[in-house]
Amino acid sequence: MGKIMVVGIGPGSYEEMTIRAAEALKSCDTIVGYTVYVELVRDHFPEKEFLTTPMTKEVDRCELAFAQAAEGKNVAMICSGDAGVYGMSGLMLEIGERYPEIPVEVIPGVTAAVGGASVLGAPLIHDFAVISLSDLLTPWEKIEKRLSAAAEADFVICLYNPSSRKRHDYLQKACDRVLAWRPGTTVCGLVRNIGREGEEYRVLTLAELRDTQVDMFTTVFIGNSQTKEVGGRMVTPRGYRL
Amino acid sequence: MGKIMVVGIGPGSYEEMTIRAAEALKSCDTIVGYTVYVELVRDHFPEKEFLTTPMTKEVDRCELAFAQAAEGKNVAMICSGDAGVYGMSGLMLEIGERYPEIPVEVIPGVTAAVGGASVLGAPLIHDFAVISLSDLLTPWEKIEKRLSAAAEADFVICLYNPSSRKRHDYLQKACDRVLAWRPGTTVCGLVRNIGREGEEYRVLTLAELRDTQVDMFTTVFIGNSQTKEVGGRMVTPRGYRL
Repeated sequence: MGKIMVVGIGPGSYEEMTIRAAEALKSCDTIVGYTVYVELVRDHFPEKEFLTTPMTKEVDRCELAFAQAAEGKNVAMICSGDAGVYGMSGLMLEIGERYPEIPVEVIPGVTAAVGGASVLGAPLIHDFAVISLSDLLTPWEKIEKRLSAAAEADFVICLYNPSSRKRHDYLQKACDRVLAWRPGTTVCGLVRNIGREGEEYRVLTLAELRDTQVDMFTTVFIGNSQTKEVGGRMVTPRGYRL
Repeated sequence: MGKIMVVGIGPGSYEEMTIRAAEALKSCDTIVGYTVYVELVRDHFPEKEFLTTPMTKEVDRCELAFAQAAEGKNVAMICSGDAGVYGMSGLMLEIGERYPEIPVEVIPGVTAAVGGASVLGAPLIHDFAVISLSDLLTPWEKIEKRLSAAAEADFVICLYNPSSRKRHDYLQKACDRVLAWRPGTTVCGLVRNIGREGEEYRVLTLAELRDTQVDMFTTVFIGNSQTKEVGGRMVTPRGYRL
Protein backbone atom coordinates (compact mmCIF):
# COMPACT_ATOMS: atom_id res chain seq x y z
CA MET A 1 0.00 0.00 0.00
CA GLY A 2 1.41 3.40 -0.98
CA LYS A 3 0.74 6.81 0.54
CA ILE A 4 -0.65 10.06 -0.77
CA MET A 5 0.82 13.52 -0.40
CA VAL A 6 -1.44 16.45 -1.38
CA VAL A 7 1.07 19.10 -2.40
CA GLY A 8 0.62 22.83 -2.89
CA ILE A 9 3.21 23.81 -5.49
CA GLY A 10 2.89 27.57 -4.98
CA PRO A 11 2.05 30.20 -7.61
CA GLY A 12 3.87 28.58 -10.51
CA SER A 13 7.61 28.82 -10.79
CA TYR A 14 9.67 26.00 -9.31
CA GLU A 15 11.44 28.39 -6.89
CA GLU A 16 8.14 29.38 -5.23
CA MET A 17 7.61 25.79 -4.04
CA THR A 18 8.67 24.91 -0.48
CA ILE A 19 11.66 22.63 -0.02
CA ARG A 20 9.27 20.09 1.56
CA ALA A 21 7.02 20.18 -1.53
CA ALA A 22 9.99 19.68 -3.87
CA GLU A 23 11.20 16.75 -1.73
CA ALA A 24 7.71 15.21 -1.91
CA LEU A 25 7.73 15.41 -5.71
CA LYS A 26 11.25 13.97 -5.82
CA SER A 27 10.34 11.06 -3.53
CA CYS A 28 7.01 10.03 -5.08
CA ASP A 29 6.38 7.52 -7.89
CA THR A 30 3.45 9.24 -9.58
CA ILE A 31 2.34 12.86 -9.88
CA VAL A 32 -1.41 13.41 -10.37
CA GLY A 33 -2.95 16.75 -11.22
CA TYR A 34 -4.96 19.06 -13.41
CA THR A 35 -3.29 19.26 -16.81
CA VAL A 36 -2.17 22.92 -16.48
CA TYR A 37 -0.44 22.38 -13.10
CA VAL A 38 1.32 19.25 -14.27
CA GLU A 39 2.87 21.29 -17.11
CA LEU A 40 4.29 23.70 -14.50
CA VAL A 41 6.39 20.97 -12.84
CA ARG A 42 6.95 18.33 -15.54
CA ASP A 43 10.34 19.64 -16.69
CA HIS A 44 11.74 19.54 -13.15
CA PHE A 45 10.79 15.89 -12.56
CA PRO A 46 11.16 14.27 -16.00
CA GLU A 47 11.59 10.75 -14.61
CA LYS A 48 8.18 10.65 -12.90
CA GLU A 49 4.94 9.12 -14.10
CA PHE A 50 2.35 11.86 -14.70
CA LEU A 51 -1.43 11.35 -14.70
CA THR A 52 -3.79 14.21 -15.50
CA THR A 53 -7.52 14.87 -15.55
CA PRO A 54 -9.23 17.98 -16.94
CA MET A 55 -10.75 20.89 -14.87
CA THR A 56 -14.25 19.81 -13.63
CA LYS A 57 -13.07 16.19 -13.06
CA GLU A 58 -11.93 16.71 -9.47
CA VAL A 59 -13.63 13.65 -7.97
CA ASP A 60 -12.20 11.43 -10.73
CA ARG A 61 -8.75 12.88 -10.08
CA CYS A 62 -8.97 11.98 -6.38
CA GLU A 63 -10.17 8.44 -7.15
CA LEU A 64 -7.28 8.07 -9.58
CA ALA A 65 -4.80 9.04 -6.86
CA PHE A 66 -6.24 6.51 -4.37
CA ALA A 67 -6.31 3.78 -7.04
CA GLN A 68 -2.61 4.39 -7.69
CA ALA A 69 -1.78 4.32 -3.98
CA ALA A 70 -3.80 1.10 -3.58
CA GLU A 71 -1.48 -0.44 -6.20
CA GLY A 72 1.47 0.39 -3.98
CA LYS A 73 2.61 3.67 -5.48
CA ASN A 74 3.51 6.79 -3.52
CA VAL A 75 1.40 9.50 -5.10
CA ALA A 76 1.78 13.28 -5.11
CA MET A 77 -1.51 15.04 -5.92
CA ILE A 78 -0.51 18.57 -6.92
CA CYS A 79 -2.49 21.81 -6.68
CA SER A 80 -1.41 25.31 -7.65
CA GLY A 81 -0.90 27.64 -4.70
CA ASP A 82 -1.89 25.85 -1.52
CA ALA A 83 -3.83 22.57 -1.59
CA GLY A 84 -6.05 23.77 1.26
CA VAL A 85 -7.30 27.08 -0.19
CA TYR A 86 -9.93 26.28 -2.86
CA GLY A 87 -7.75 23.22 -3.48
CA MET A 88 -8.05 19.45 -3.37
CA SER A 89 -7.00 18.56 0.18
CA GLY A 90 -10.57 18.61 1.55
CA LEU A 91 -11.95 16.38 -1.17
CA MET A 92 -8.98 14.02 -0.77
CA LEU A 93 -9.61 13.67 2.97
CA GLU A 94 -13.34 13.10 2.37
CA ILE A 95 -12.78 10.44 -0.30
CA GLY A 96 -9.97 9.05 1.85
CA GLU A 97 -12.56 7.87 4.37
CA ARG A 98 -13.23 5.01 1.94
CA TYR A 99 -9.51 4.11 1.99
CA PRO A 100 -8.63 4.20 5.71
CA GLU A 101 -5.45 2.18 5.10
CA ILE A 102 -3.94 4.84 2.79
CA PRO A 103 -2.29 7.71 4.70
CA VAL A 104 -2.93 11.24 3.36
CA GLU A 105 -0.41 13.99 4.17
CA VAL A 106 -1.10 17.63 3.27
CA ILE A 107 1.94 19.75 2.32
CA PRO A 108 1.24 23.49 2.34
CA GLY A 109 2.25 26.05 -0.27
CA VAL A 110 2.12 29.76 -1.05
CA THR A 111 -1.49 30.55 -2.00
CA ALA A 112 -2.34 33.31 -4.51
CA ALA A 113 -3.43 35.73 -1.75
CA VAL A 114 0.02 35.58 -0.18
CA GLY A 115 1.98 35.34 -3.43
CA GLY A 116 0.01 38.13 -5.08
CA ALA A 117 0.36 40.33 -1.99
CA SER A 118 4.14 40.07 -2.18
CA VAL A 119 4.07 41.29 -5.79
CA LEU A 120 1.76 44.23 -5.00
CA GLY A 121 3.61 45.25 -1.84
CA ALA A 122 1.92 44.50 1.48
CA PRO A 123 -1.87 44.71 1.12
CA LEU A 124 -2.71 41.91 3.62
CA ILE A 125 -0.70 43.16 6.59
CA HIS A 126 -3.84 43.34 8.70
CA ASP A 127 -7.09 41.32 9.05
CA PHE A 128 -8.34 40.11 5.69
CA ALA A 129 -11.06 38.03 4.05
CA VAL A 130 -10.59 35.67 1.10
CA ILE A 131 -13.65 35.25 -1.14
CA SER A 132 -14.05 33.32 -4.39
CA LEU A 133 -16.39 34.86 -6.98
CA SER A 134 -17.04 31.47 -8.57
CA ASP A 135 -20.68 30.47 -8.12
CA LEU A 136 -20.22 26.98 -9.54
CA LEU A 137 -20.46 25.45 -6.05
CA THR A 138 -21.70 28.42 -3.97
CA PRO A 139 -24.94 30.43 -4.42
CA TRP A 140 -24.24 34.00 -5.58
CA GLU A 141 -26.39 35.36 -2.73
CA LYS A 142 -23.98 33.84 -0.21
CA ILE A 143 -21.02 35.40 -2.04
CA GLU A 144 -22.73 38.81 -1.98
CA LYS A 145 -23.48 38.47 1.72
CA ARG A 146 -19.81 37.76 2.43
CA LEU A 147 -18.69 40.71 0.28
CA SER A 148 -20.99 43.06 2.19
CA ALA A 149 -19.96 41.72 5.59
CA ALA A 150 -16.25 41.98 4.79
CA ALA A 151 -16.64 45.51 3.38
CA GLU A 152 -18.70 46.75 6.33
CA ALA A 153 -16.24 45.36 8.90
CA ASP A 154 -13.30 46.96 7.05
CA PHE A 155 -11.42 43.78 6.14
CA VAL A 156 -8.90 43.88 3.33
CA ILE A 157 -10.57 41.62 0.72
CA CYS A 158 -8.78 39.22 -1.62
CA LEU A 159 -10.87 37.85 -4.50
CA TYR A 160 -10.11 34.50 -6.14
CA ASN A 161 -11.69 33.49 -9.46
CA PRO A 162 -12.77 37.07 -10.22
CA SER A 163 -13.87 36.27 -13.75
CA SER A 164 -14.46 33.60 -16.34
CA ARG A 165 -16.00 33.47 -19.79
CA LYS A 166 -19.49 32.98 -18.35
CA ARG A 167 -19.04 35.44 -15.48
CA HIS A 168 -17.56 38.52 -17.16
CA ASP A 169 -19.54 40.98 -14.98
CA TYR A 170 -19.01 39.33 -11.55
CA LEU A 171 -16.13 41.59 -10.54
CA GLN A 172 -18.24 44.63 -11.38
CA LYS A 173 -21.11 43.24 -9.28
CA ALA A 174 -18.71 42.51 -6.42
CA CYS A 175 -17.27 46.04 -6.55
CA ASP A 176 -20.78 47.49 -6.46
CA ARG A 177 -21.41 45.58 -3.22
CA VAL A 178 -18.22 46.90 -1.68
CA LEU A 179 -18.95 50.45 -2.94
CA ALA A 180 -22.04 50.44 -0.72
CA TRP A 181 -19.65 50.57 2.27
CA ARG A 182 -16.37 51.98 0.96
CA PRO A 183 -15.44 55.07 -1.06
CA GLY A 184 -14.47 54.79 -4.73
CA THR A 185 -11.01 56.08 -3.77
CA THR A 186 -10.25 52.88 -1.80
CA VAL A 187 -6.84 51.58 -2.90
CA CYS A 188 -7.04 48.26 -4.79
CA GLY A 189 -4.63 46.02 -6.66
CA LEU A 190 -4.56 43.39 -9.39
CA VAL A 191 -1.92 40.75 -9.98
CA ARG A 192 -1.88 38.56 -13.07
CA ASN A 193 0.18 35.39 -13.65
CA ILE A 194 1.66 35.43 -10.13
CA GLY A 195 5.11 33.82 -10.17
CA ARG A 196 4.75 32.85 -13.82
CA GLU A 197 5.87 34.24 -17.17
CA GLY A 198 4.11 37.53 -17.87
CA GLU A 199 3.61 38.45 -14.20
CA GLU A 200 2.16 41.95 -13.96
CA TYR A 201 0.45 44.10 -11.36
CA ARG A 202 -1.49 47.32 -11.15
CA VAL A 203 -2.52 49.55 -8.25
CA LEU A 204 -5.81 51.36 -8.87
CA THR A 205 -8.88 52.77 -7.10
CA LEU A 206 -12.02 50.79 -6.33
CA ALA A 207 -13.92 52.98 -8.82
CA GLU A 208 -11.38 52.09 -11.52
CA LEU A 209 -11.41 48.41 -10.53
CA ARG A 210 -15.18 48.31 -11.02
CA ASP A 211 -14.73 49.16 -14.70
CA THR A 212 -11.74 46.89 -15.34
CA GLN A 213 -11.96 43.55 -17.15
CA VAL A 214 -9.81 40.85 -15.60
CA ASP A 215 -9.25 37.22 -16.56
CA MET A 216 -9.14 33.98 -14.58
CA PHE A 217 -5.36 34.26 -14.03
CA THR A 218 -5.86 37.43 -11.99
CA THR A 219 -6.11 37.83 -8.20
CA VAL A 220 -7.81 41.00 -6.93
CA PHE A 221 -7.12 42.93 -3.71
CA ILE A 222 -9.46 45.56 -2.23
CA GLY A 223 -7.84 47.62 0.53
CA ASN A 224 -9.32 48.54 3.91
CA SER A 225 -9.89 52.13 5.05
CA GLN A 226 -6.17 52.52 5.91
CA THR A 227 -4.64 50.99 2.76
CA LYS A 228 -2.55 53.39 0.71
CA GLU A 229 -0.27 53.62 -2.28
CA VAL A 230 3.40 53.79 -1.26
CA GLY A 231 5.91 54.28 -4.06
CA GLY A 232 3.56 52.70 -6.61
CA ARG A 233 2.80 49.69 -4.40
CA MET A 234 -0.25 48.73 -2.28
CA VAL A 235 0.40 48.84 1.46
CA THR A 236 -1.92 48.35 4.44
CA PRO A 237 -0.30 49.88 7.53
CA ARG A 238 -0.39 47.82 10.71
CA GLY A 239 -0.49 50.84 12.96
CA TYR A 240 3.12 51.38 14.05
CA ARG A 241 4.10 54.97 14.79
CA LEU A 242 6.76 56.10 12.33
CA MET B 1 24.25 50.46 -2.32
CA GLY B 2 22.86 47.05 -1.32
CA LYS B 3 19.32 45.74 -1.63
CA ILE B 4 16.77 44.41 0.83
CA MET B 5 14.78 41.20 0.61
CA VAL B 6 11.89 40.82 3.07
CA VAL B 7 11.63 37.05 3.44
CA GLY B 8 8.84 34.90 4.88
CA ILE B 9 10.59 31.81 6.22
CA GLY B 10 7.40 29.76 6.74
CA PRO B 11 6.18 28.16 9.96
CA GLY B 12 9.57 27.21 11.36
CA SER B 13 11.41 24.20 9.99
CA TYR B 14 13.89 24.79 7.18
CA GLU B 15 11.95 22.50 4.81
CA GLU B 16 8.81 24.67 5.02
CA MET B 17 10.70 27.59 3.45
CA THR B 18 10.32 28.15 -0.31
CA ILE B 19 13.32 27.47 -2.53
CA ARG B 20 13.31 31.19 -3.39
CA ALA B 21 13.47 32.13 0.31
CA ALA B 22 16.37 29.73 0.93
CA GLU B 23 18.21 31.17 -2.10
CA ALA B 24 17.66 34.68 -0.75
CA LEU B 25 19.21 33.73 2.61
CA LYS B 26 22.10 32.00 0.85
CA SER B 27 22.79 35.01 -1.39
CA CYS B 28 22.57 37.81 1.19
CA ASP B 29 25.33 39.25 3.36
CA THR B 30 23.33 39.98 6.51
CA ILE B 31 20.21 38.45 8.05
CA VAL B 32 18.12 40.78 10.23
CA GLY B 33 15.22 39.61 12.39
CA TYR B 34 13.46 39.16 15.68
CA THR B 35 15.66 37.07 17.96
CA VAL B 36 13.37 33.99 17.98
CA TYR B 37 13.15 33.78 14.15
CA VAL B 38 16.88 34.21 13.72
CA GLU B 39 17.40 31.16 15.96
CA LEU B 40 15.19 29.13 13.59
CA VAL B 41 17.54 29.67 10.62
CA ARG B 42 20.96 30.35 12.16
CA ASP B 43 22.21 26.74 11.96
CA HIS B 44 21.44 26.53 8.23
CA PHE B 45 23.40 29.68 7.34
CA PRO B 46 26.30 29.67 9.83
CA GLU B 47 28.55 31.88 7.67
CA LYS B 48 26.14 34.86 7.64
CA GLU B 49 26.17 37.96 9.76
CA PHE B 50 23.08 38.02 12.03
CA LEU B 51 21.56 41.15 13.58
CA THR B 52 18.58 40.93 15.92
CA THR B 53 16.24 43.26 17.76
CA PRO B 54 13.66 42.26 20.41
CA MET B 55 9.83 41.99 19.90
CA THR B 56 8.32 45.56 20.14
CA LYS B 57 11.36 47.09 18.33
CA GLU B 58 9.97 46.68 14.82
CA VAL B 59 10.72 50.22 13.59
CA ASP B 60 14.31 49.96 14.89
CA ARG B 61 14.68 46.60 13.10
CA CYS B 62 13.62 48.16 9.80
CA GLU B 63 15.95 51.12 10.23
CA LEU B 64 18.78 48.68 11.00
CA ALA B 65 18.11 46.83 7.73
CA PHE B 66 18.16 50.04 5.66
CA ALA B 67 21.33 51.24 7.43
CA GLN B 68 23.04 47.96 6.50
CA ALA B 69 21.88 48.22 2.88
CA ALA B 70 23.06 51.83 2.72
CA GLU B 71 26.53 50.51 3.66
CA GLY B 72 26.44 48.28 0.59
CA LYS B 73 25.24 45.03 2.10
CA ASN B 74 22.52 42.81 0.67
CA VAL B 75 20.13 42.32 3.57
CA ALA B 76 17.51 39.64 4.23
CA MET B 77 14.90 40.78 6.77
CA ILE B 78 13.22 37.58 7.95
CA CYS B 79 9.71 37.05 9.32
CA SER B 80 8.09 33.82 10.45
CA GLY B 81 5.30 32.59 8.18
CA ASP B 82 4.75 35.16 5.44
CA ALA B 83 6.24 38.66 5.63
CA GLY B 84 2.97 40.17 4.39
CA VAL B 85 0.51 38.69 6.93
CA TYR B 86 0.95 40.56 10.23
CA GLY B 87 4.59 40.74 9.14
CA MET B 88 7.19 43.39 8.39
CA SER B 89 6.83 43.93 4.64
CA GLY B 90 4.39 46.85 5.03
CA LEU B 91 6.55 48.71 7.53
CA MET B 92 9.62 48.07 5.35
CA LEU B 93 7.91 49.59 2.29
CA GLU B 94 6.73 52.58 4.33
CA ILE B 95 10.14 53.27 5.84
CA GLY B 96 11.66 52.53 2.42
CA GLU B 97 10.13 55.75 1.12
CA ARG B 98 12.97 57.53 2.92
CA TYR B 99 15.52 55.37 1.05
CA PRO B 100 14.25 55.48 -2.56
CA GLU B 101 17.62 54.27 -3.88
CA ILE B 102 17.44 50.94 -1.96
CA PRO B 103 15.28 48.30 -3.74
CA VAL B 104 12.94 46.25 -1.52
CA GLU B 105 11.81 42.82 -2.75
CA VAL B 106 9.15 40.82 -0.86
CA ILE B 107 9.52 37.01 -0.91
CA PRO B 108 6.37 35.16 0.19
CA GLY B 109 6.14 32.23 2.58
CA VAL B 110 3.66 29.80 4.12
CA THR B 111 1.67 31.78 6.70
CA ALA B 112 0.29 30.12 9.88
CA ALA B 113 -3.27 29.99 8.48
CA VAL B 114 -2.11 27.86 5.55
CA GLY B 115 0.50 25.85 7.48
CA GLY B 116 -1.85 25.19 10.38
CA ALA B 117 -4.68 24.21 8.02
CA SER B 118 -2.49 21.52 6.46
CA VAL B 119 -1.84 20.03 9.92
CA LEU B 120 -5.54 20.06 10.87
CA GLY B 121 -6.75 18.70 7.52
CA ALA B 122 -8.52 21.16 5.22
CA PRO B 123 -10.42 23.79 7.22
CA LEU B 124 -9.84 26.72 4.80
CA ILE B 125 -11.08 25.08 1.62
CA HIS B 126 -13.72 27.75 1.19
CA ASP B 127 -14.03 31.52 1.87
CA PHE B 128 -12.26 32.51 5.09
CA ALA B 129 -11.38 35.48 7.27
CA VAL B 130 -8.10 35.97 9.12
CA ILE B 131 -8.34 38.04 12.33
CA SER B 132 -5.67 38.86 14.92
CA LEU B 133 -6.87 39.07 18.54
CA SER B 134 -3.96 41.33 19.47
CA ASP B 135 -5.26 44.77 20.48
CA LEU B 136 -1.81 46.34 20.76
CA LEU B 137 -2.32 48.22 17.48
CA THR B 138 -6.07 47.73 16.86
CA PRO B 139 -9.01 48.78 19.10
CA TRP B 140 -10.79 45.73 20.59
CA GLU B 141 -14.15 47.10 19.36
CA LYS B 142 -12.91 46.82 15.76
CA ILE B 143 -11.77 43.23 16.38
CA GLU B 144 -15.20 42.36 17.83
CA LYS B 145 -16.95 43.93 14.85
CA ARG B 146 -14.87 41.81 12.48
CA LEU B 147 -15.56 38.64 14.48
CA SER B 148 -19.31 39.28 14.34
CA ALA B 149 -19.29 40.10 10.63
CA ALA B 150 -17.26 36.99 9.76
CA ALA B 151 -19.45 34.75 11.92
CA GLU B 152 -22.71 36.14 10.54
CA ALA B 153 -21.56 35.75 6.91
CA ASP B 154 -20.47 32.14 7.57
CA PHE B 155 -16.76 32.55 6.85
CA VAL B 156 -14.33 30.01 8.23
CA ILE B 157 -12.34 32.11 10.73
CA CYS B 158 -8.63 31.80 11.46
CA LEU B 159 -7.40 33.59 14.59
CA TYR B 160 -3.80 34.79 14.98
CA ASN B 161 -2.39 35.89 18.34
CA PRO B 162 -5.27 34.26 20.26
CA SER B 163 -3.67 34.83 23.65
CA SER B 164 -0.84 36.38 25.61
CA ARG B 165 -0.03 36.87 29.26
CA LYS B 166 -2.03 40.10 29.42
CA ARG B 167 -4.89 38.81 27.23
CA HIS B 168 -5.71 35.41 28.72
CA ASP B 169 -9.50 35.79 28.23
CA TYR B 170 -9.49 37.18 24.66
CA LEU B 171 -10.17 33.83 23.00
CA GLN B 172 -13.13 33.31 25.32
CA LYS B 173 -14.48 36.76 24.44
CA ALA B 174 -13.97 36.06 20.73
CA CYS B 175 -15.81 32.73 20.98
CA ASP B 176 -18.70 34.44 22.75
CA ARG B 177 -19.02 36.83 19.80
CA VAL B 178 -19.07 33.95 17.33
CA LEU B 179 -21.52 31.98 19.52
CA ALA B 180 -24.06 34.76 18.95
CA TRP B 181 -24.25 33.54 15.31
CA ARG B 182 -23.06 29.92 15.33
CA PRO B 183 -24.01 26.84 17.36
CA GLY B 184 -21.71 25.50 20.07
CA THR B 185 -21.34 22.32 17.99
CA THR B 186 -19.44 24.19 15.25
CA VAL B 187 -16.27 22.25 14.42
CA CYS B 188 -13.09 24.07 15.43
CA GLY B 189 -9.38 23.30 15.53
CA LEU B 190 -6.19 24.33 17.30
CA VAL B 191 -2.63 23.91 16.08
CA ARG B 192 0.37 24.60 18.29
CA ASN B 193 4.01 24.94 17.21
CA ILE B 194 3.20 24.59 13.49
CA GLY B 195 6.15 23.05 11.66
CA ARG B 196 8.29 23.12 14.81
CA GLU B 197 9.30 20.70 17.54
CA GLY B 198 6.28 19.76 19.62
CA GLU B 199 3.73 20.35 16.84
CA GLU B 200 0.29 19.25 18.04
CA TYR B 201 -3.31 19.73 16.99
CA ARG B 202 -6.78 19.19 18.32
CA VAL B 203 -10.24 19.18 16.73
CA LEU B 204 -12.96 20.34 19.12
CA THR B 205 -16.33 22.12 19.24
CA LEU B 206 -16.80 25.88 19.52
CA ALA B 207 -18.29 25.36 23.01
CA GLU B 208 -15.15 23.45 24.04
CA LEU B 209 -12.86 26.02 22.39
CA ARG B 210 -14.49 28.78 24.47
CA ASP B 211 -13.27 27.09 27.66
CA THR B 212 -9.79 26.17 26.40
CA GLN B 213 -6.63 28.05 27.37
CA VAL B 214 -4.22 28.52 24.47
CA ASP B 215 -0.82 30.18 24.27
CA MET B 216 0.78 32.59 21.80
CA PHE B 217 2.23 29.71 19.74
CA THR B 218 -1.28 28.51 18.85
CA THR B 219 -3.36 29.26 15.73
CA VAL B 220 -7.13 28.81 16.07
CA PHE B 221 -9.62 27.78 13.37
CA ILE B 222 -13.41 28.16 13.67
CA GLY B 223 -15.35 26.25 11.02
CA ASN B 224 -18.25 27.49 8.91
CA SER B 225 -21.72 25.90 8.94
CA GLN B 226 -20.49 23.07 6.65
CA THR B 227 -17.20 22.22 8.39
CA LYS B 228 -17.05 18.69 9.79
CA GLU B 229 -14.73 16.22 11.43
CA VAL B 230 -13.46 13.60 8.97
CA GLY B 231 -11.34 10.82 10.43
CA GLY B 232 -10.22 13.01 13.32
CA ARG B 233 -9.33 15.97 11.09
CA MET B 234 -11.08 19.28 10.36
CA VAL B 235 -12.50 19.54 6.83
CA THR B 236 -14.61 22.23 5.17
CA PRO B 237 -16.30 20.74 2.08
CA ARG B 238 -16.22 22.80 -1.09
CA GLY B 239 -19.49 21.43 -2.36
CA TYR B 240 -18.55 18.65 -4.79
CA ARG B 241 -21.04 15.79 -5.06
CA LEU B 242 -19.42 12.58 -3.83
